[in-house]
Amino acid sequence: MDRVNNLKQALPYIRRHRGKTFVIKLGGRVFEERHALLALAEDITLLHNVGIKVIVVHGGGPQMNELARKLGVPQQVVGGRRVTNDETLDLAKMLFRGKLNVEIVSALREFGTLAVGLSGGDGGLVEATRRPVVQVQESDGSTQEVDFGHVGDVVSVNPHVLHTLTNAGFIPVVCSLASTLTGGILNVNADTIAERIAIAVGADKLFFLTDRSGLLEDAADLDSLVSYCDVADVERMLAAGVIAGGMKPKINAALKALKGGVPRIHVISAFQASSILLEVFTNEGSGTLIVNDKHEVQP
Amino acid sequence: MDRVNNLKQALPYIRRHRGKTFVIKLGGRVFEERHALLALAEDITLLHNVGIKVIVVHGGGPQMNELARKLGVPQQVVGGRRVTNDETLDLAKMLFRGKLNVEIVSALREFGTLAVGLSGGDGGLVEATRRPVVQVQESDGSTQEVDFGHVGDVVSVNPHVLHTLTNAGFIPVVCSLASTLTGGILNVNADTIAERIAIAVGADKLFFLTDRSGLLEDAADLDSLVSYCDVADVERMLAAGVIAGGMKPKINAALKALKGGVPRIHVISAFQASSILLEVFTNEGSGTLIVNDKHEVQP
Amino acid sequence: MDRVNNLKQALPYIRRHRGKTFVIKLGGRVFEERHALLALAEDITLLHNVGIKVIVVHGGGPQMNELARKLGVPQQVVGGRRVTNDETLDLAKMLFRGKLNVEIVSALREFGTLAVGLSGGDGGLVEATRRPVVQVQESDGSTQEVDFGHVGDVVSVNPHVLHTLTNAGFIPVVCSLASTLTGGILNVNADTIAERIAIAVGADKLFFLTDRSGLLEDAADLDSLVSYCDVADVERMLAAGVIAGGMKPKINAALKALKGGVPRIHVISAFQASSILLEVFTNEGSGTLIVNDKHEVQP
Amino acid sequence: MDRVNNLKQALPYIRRHRGKTFVIKLGGRVFEERHALLALAEDITLLHNVGIKVIVVHGGGPQMNELARKLGVPQQVVGGRRVTNDETLDLAKMLFRGKLNVEIVSALREFGTLAVGLSGGDGGLVEATRRPVVQVQESDGSTQEVDFGHVGDVVSVNPHVLHTLTNAGFIPVVCSLASTLTGGILNVNADTIAERIAIAVGADKLFFLTDRSGLLEDAADLDSLVSYCDVADVERMLAAGVIAGGMKPKINAALKALKGGVPRIHVISAFQASSILLEVFTNEGSGTLIVNDKHEVQP
Amino acid sequence: MDRVNNLKQALPYIRRHRGKTFVIKLGGRVFEERHALLALAEDITLLHNVGIKVIVVHGGGPQMNELARKLGVPQQVVGGRRVTNDETLDLAKMLFRGKLNVEIVSALREFGTLAVGLSGGDGGLVEATRRPVVQVQESDGSTQEVDFGHVGDVVSVNPHVLHTLTNAGFIPVVCSLASTLTGGILNVNADTIAERIAIAVGADKLFFLTDRSGLLEDAADLDSLVSYCDVADVERMLAAGVIAGGMKPKINAALKALKGGVPRIHVISAFQASSILLEVFTNEGSGTLIVNDKHEVQP
Amino acid sequence: MDRVNNLKQALPYIRRHRGKTFVIKLGGRVFEERHALLALAEDITLLHNVGIKVIVVHGGGPQMNELARKLGVPQQVVGGRRVTNDETLDLAKMLFRGKLNVEIVSALREFGTLAVGLSGGDGGLVEATRRPVVQVQESDGSTQEVDFGHVGDVVSVNPHVLHTLTNAGFIPVVCSLASTLTGGILNVNADTIAERIAIAVGADKLFFLTDRSGLLEDAADLDSLVSYCDVADVERMLAAGVIAGGMKPKINAALKALKGGVPRIHVISAFQASSILLEVFTNEGSGTLIVNDKHEVQP
Repeated sequence: MDRVNNLKQALPYIRRHRGKTFVIKLGGRVFEERHALLALAEDITLLHNVGIKVIVVHGGGPQMNELARKLGVPQQVVGGRRVTNDETLDLAKMLFRGKLNVEIVSALREFGTLAVGLSGGDGGLVEATRRPVVQVQESDGSTQEVDFGHVGDVVSVNPHVLHTLTNAGFIPVVCSLASTLTGGILNVNADTIAERIAIAVGADKLFFLTDRSGLLEDAADLDSLVSYCDVADVERMLAAGVIAGGMKPKINAALKALKGGVPRIHVISAFQASSILLEVFTNEGSGTLIVNDKHEVQP
Repeated sequence: MDRVNNLKQALPYIRRHRGKTFVIKLGGRVFEERHALLALAEDITLLHNVGIKVIVVHGGGPQMNELARKLGVPQQVVGGRRVTNDETLDLAKMLFRGKLNVEIVSALREFGTLAVGLSGGDGGLVEATRRPVVQVQESDGSTQEVDFGHVGDVVSVNPHVLHTLTNAGFIPVVCSLASTLTGGILNVNADTIAERIAIAVGADKLFFLTDRSGLLEDAADLDSLVSYCDVADVERMLAAGVIAGGMKPKINAALKALKGGVPRIHVISAFQASSILLEVFTNEGSGTLIVNDKHEVQP
Repeated sequence: MDRVNNLKQALPYIRRHRGKTFVIKLGGRVFEERHALLALAEDITLLHNVGIKVIVVHGGGPQMNELARKLGVPQQVVGGRRVTNDETLDLAKMLFRGKLNVEIVSALREFGTLAVGLSGGDGGLVEATRRPVVQVQESDGSTQEVDFGHVGDVVSVNPHVLHTLTNAGFIPVVCSLASTLTGGILNVNADTIAERIAIAVGADKLFFLTDRSGLLEDAADLDSLVSYCDVADVERMLAAGVIAGGMKPKINAALKALKGGVPRIHVISAFQASSILLEVFTNEGSGTLIVNDKHEVQP
Repeated sequence: MDRVNNLKQALPYIRRHRGKTFVIKLGGRVFEERHALLALAEDITLLHNVGIKVIVVHGGGPQMNELARKLGVPQQVVGGRRVTNDETLDLAKMLFRGKLNVEIVSALREFGTLAVGLSGGDGGLVEATRRPVVQVQESDGSTQEVDFGHVGDVVSVNPHVLHTLTNAGFIPVVCSLASTLTGGILNVNADTIAERIAIAVGADKLFFLTDRSGLLEDAADLDSLVSYCDVADVERMLAAGVIAGGMKPKINAALKALKGGVPRIHVISAFQASSILLEVFTNEGSGTLIVNDKHEVQP
Repeated sequence: MDRVNNLKQALPYIRRHRGKTFVIKLGGRVFEERHALLALAEDITLLHNVGIKVIVVHGGGPQMNELARKLGVPQQVVGGRRVTNDETLDLAKMLFRGKLNVEIVSALREFGTLAVGLSGGDGGLVEATRRPVVQVQESDGSTQEVDFGHVGDVVSVNPHVLHTLTNAGFIPVVCSLASTLTGGILNVNADTIAERIAIAVGADKLFFLTDRSGLLEDAADLDSLVSYCDVADVERMLAAGVIAGGMKPKINAALKALKGGVPRIHVISAFQASSILLEVFTNEGSGTLIVNDKHEVQP
Repeated sequence: MDRVNNLKQALPYIRRHRGKTFVIKLGGRVFEERHALLALAEDITLLHNVGIKVIVVHGGGPQMNELARKLGVPQQVVGGRRVTNDETLDLAKMLFRGKLNVEIVSALREFGTLAVGLSGGDGGLVEATRRPVVQVQESDGSTQEVDFGHVGDVVSVNPHVLHTLTNAGFIPVVCSLASTLTGGILNVNADTIAERIAIAVGADKLFFLTDRSGLLEDAADLDSLVSYCDVADVERMLAAGVIAGGMKPKINAALKALKGGVPRIHVISAFQASSILLEVFTNEGSGTLIVNDKHEVQP
């Protein structure tokens, strides 16, 4: 009876979201706990079954570090971006596309949901160009040229393969590799791919699943969660240095997605049980909802 | 959080029923309590929003008696079937099609669901022929000819208008009037219309909403509910006289629907809160489930 | 042979109208004569069978008065608009939706044409809001507040259910009830509904079937029929007081429909044999054709 | 008013034939009178506009004789079939496809109807093989080998191009040339092409327009018209020699079409005003209707 | 192996042209050599089979002269345009539509390709009006009125029948006759029809097959072929009188097509083996490619 | 000019194969030479561009051995089948799905062709069950239980995701991993997957690309190539022990595919330049064609 009452309380939310598209960016750490991945797969299956079109995007930074360490492949990171030589690119393909992507598809299958794993190179989905060599200033004031190797900047997203798959009832699961026009594979930031895909498909929501429960006013105080804010708030927090570390690129991607027409960005925990469902099916939510302007009625 | 947990427990049921068609026969008494009607509308809206195609069928016997009494139109009932002269047919149109049907459509609208009211005469949905004059044996042994007037026997159901409306996202709400090939309107038993429509559309479930919580082994003992039974059980109960009164025509319609290919019939309460949802989204259910053969694995 | 010659003379008219949409507003009195209703049904069937999409709209004022009188329900009319309390609303539903609407559908069925009866509350077709309380000036100079009760003003028309039905080969027959967003039923002027539907579906013609043969220059002289006029003519006639009584709201609706893009309004007799067909298939017509500007070539 | 009454009398016929396919075989002599051709084009336009799919088939024997005579090309006919050498085949192409076919398309255009002229070689419509050399017995008892040259026997009809055109709203007009699989053009009997096309498209009616008003019991008595008959009647008339001359191949084609599933064959006059329309829109008809078995209810 | 290597070299060209539309205007002289026509049919079949939509347009001037001479019908040409009296129009229909059009369709059939022959009068494809009487200045300075008779100027092209046929997999073959709105047939310049059709269907290439290998800088020097030029070049050549004779109307049509949005015009030989394929599948080409502006990157 | 002539010679082959489906199984060694992989991608692109639907299937045995050796993961092979423990399964995912599959998709992209990489676990494509523990007889006569671990036997193929992608213009590239109904990943023989997919999609041809040029009568004599044979021949060769080693499972898969309705199996070299194209576009071919019965006309 509780179940039925709760279903009925969920009804207005189901009605609001049916037929909409959600892009969900999984953070790398969710792969460390099979339990967390399965919980996510169940949540996504539920969204799928009440008529929401879901597209999953993922990277795999932490796993990459671990695999490189295990195999003795030294990794160099400059300005938060991994320098990707041939050997590292091979590892990225094998890890992102071969292992993590397959694990998400499998976890969804465990709940009876048919997904199709993709990289940005499949179906011409994400076109990128090699990042130009950049001048990086050293701490001693000298500058150094850095060639990031097989690192790409996104040029365009062609969502045809996504529409083809979602219209046929499949959930696309996209890993953070892109392709040049001539078939070269490039390592691309997963937050950026999620943002660009969300814009290209006209998503209604873009979720970033992170290690935190959302944006915090005070990084040291987990109770300082910001439930609801807008671009002005976020820019103020960025200026104040409240947003830092791995959250920063996510928030920058979020701002671009808002600008690109995605009306709602959700920053939530990858580990809190059912954080996505709480965010979608309750008013309170579980993390941070960012909109363009909180003083306007949201569409 | 409870809501979300309950949603997750409902997930296997949602997955099982998506895309299926349910026919729901409302008993006349549900119109007496606006509260009960709204509760039903909410339940139906939920089924609709998780992707189930719902078709509602209703009669209005009790309201008919009351209206006839208020307007001083004498009613004659022979063998459980209302003799329908011109004046009574006018009342039936006005009550079933004009008042009750509109009330169901309105109640669904209150939950944001778009329904379209129909009689069996709309879109050529239910074709009937006038019931022949019958010989009825009197208690004194004499026989009497009874002409039921504008009472019809169903000849065929053409579900085209139902598919047209459900495919366009509308819920059809059908009242128990039928049409002859030449446009005559006939009063037809609503249980029969529900059964014939369920067969014609290939429904997966046919619900009879009644004043009882389901079939009772002992009519005097409300705790003697039969949760699960099959045709053999029902025939045994009919032979034993356990099923009687208004339940009998429903059960006869149920048996015909089972024979016609509808795999599951549910006899449930029109008044118990969320009886439909309990029946659909929990294993325990709320009333009686009748299948062809309970020893076989159900499809 | 005459038949065939006449068919051939009708050919240019058939070619002109195939694939077009006509909205036909039936006046209440046509229900008083079964003969007249059947004649109309035959005419509509003919239009339907030469490829014209027909939508029928009807009210039922005269029948309402009679039914109220018979049942002893007092009726109050202010400024030509019926004050609609709960009891009167129930009568309206029963009469418009239950009796008259069913009769039109049946009459069409008699000619083999499948129609679907609708109220403005079905399929979200006509959304209305309750008319605000108004100040009415009495003859003695005092003012009085009038609450029209369940009387609605049309907010919008969503033609989706009409297109769904006409594309599937059904003729929609719409009675003059509308719905609020929350499922309330309101009594709405049928001329207004006809006008708004004609605009919403992009009708090519809107017919008003009336007790007169069309607009008369001199109300007392039935031979003073105006065959062809435009908005300027009509406004002149309104100013001169030539158009009065029940014709006035029809003409106001006609003017709004012309302004809303319906190129031709026909005011014709509901009782003259085949008045619609004469209007459609002959140059002389049978009543009054109103266009935006008779000096311009009509589209 | 007559027009409208006649339209109404035509209504049951329009309803019966909407959506059906008629194949109309024009006899060659209709081209001799522009007036007759235009009258036919008007009749066909009317059928087209009440929703009947029309396919026209024509030959051009009489015109062929005249053209050959004018150009001094000797013609040889054996057993009713023209021996077709290279020069005669060129004349056939120029006359049938170039002149007569264009004239029918133009006549239809004059009534606003868009037709597309075809030969059996267009779109792979009619595949034929060259007729084998045959032994013909001379009057003196000797036999002679006759090579008919570019005369074809129909192998198969592929109606794809006909469906493509009729579904797009065009009327196909087919002249009596066919193609071999390797592109050779052959002269084929137009009655046979009409019969084979009628079978291939599942036509409801096949019309032969002839110089007579239909089948006559007594060739000398124009009043001896047979209005309605069946295969048994026709076979009896053939045995009795009542059917002779150019009527014989038509009737043989008619019998094959009936056997191939075309339920009704009409033999009517090409010159009587509106003979097609009389046949379609009146019970009396104008010529001869042939069915499989007149004692059975016709489908 | 050569075949396979050459296929692979053709691959980039196949990829570039798949799904595009080519209009190919055949010059009249190609009909004089069955060998040349078959070679063209093979080339067109190849284009069709690698996924290019081909539309063929043809006239038949030289054959017309010959036929008229043979039949003793005097021909008058004023300013390059044939005066077309009734008798000449009949010849034009018989020759263009009856003989030449059928020959192209047959030649394509010989390679297994299904084509459908059309005139501009079929399916309302090309609407024309009769050319007005013009004043022509005589060499002696006097002027003379010339009535070209059944000669038409193109008013509009309705490509519906072309799209219908190409979408169904057929190749339309259009001869240079057009129709007035009332069914009159007019003789229209084939270069103009090709140009107007190319614009109407949004063709990517328009080919003119001529007796020369392309545009020549010096008409006397067959080696002075211009491989690649633009509108400015062509206008310079016209001004210099380099382009003359039958090439002039083609080039004027080419300029109009370029202006109308056809990006590439090819003037090539009708007789050089595989000139079309060389032009499409090699960089060198075989004749003259004309673009709007050779200094811009071509789309 | 050679190119064009060769294109024309290829035309009959192009016509024969347009719209057909080819399944191409790549052998693992083709990944060792980037040059060979690119050549294959070019060939596949050509097939794709002349309208053939291509599905690529691949394994990666040799690369697996090398990767395992490099990472020091011991590999056990029993009866030709790799025992797949957890660590080896991870390697298989990373290598097959992560590296090799991505390389094929990239190589195709280099020729402008959009492919989508899949494992049998994507979109529910290949369902498998874990291979049961088997008794293996040792050379000393003792038996040993072998648990192959994550090795699967194919239960069924659901081609929905393949049709979805090919209909949208993408080439599916499938690696040899399958999924259980509950999301477990299993290592499955690639020849078997190719065979089962070819049957499921109704392929017209199934290619096995191998290290040899085809089937050899005498393994030691590379000139003893069998160009054309049937099932009877193959069974004779199997009985005679002529077919051995890695060729044996391919041939067994080929026999099953033939039995399952795939009419033509091609065993060709992965390294001979353009072996696929030679096989498809020439009569001589390049390897071995196997049919059901070489004495029957092939469909």
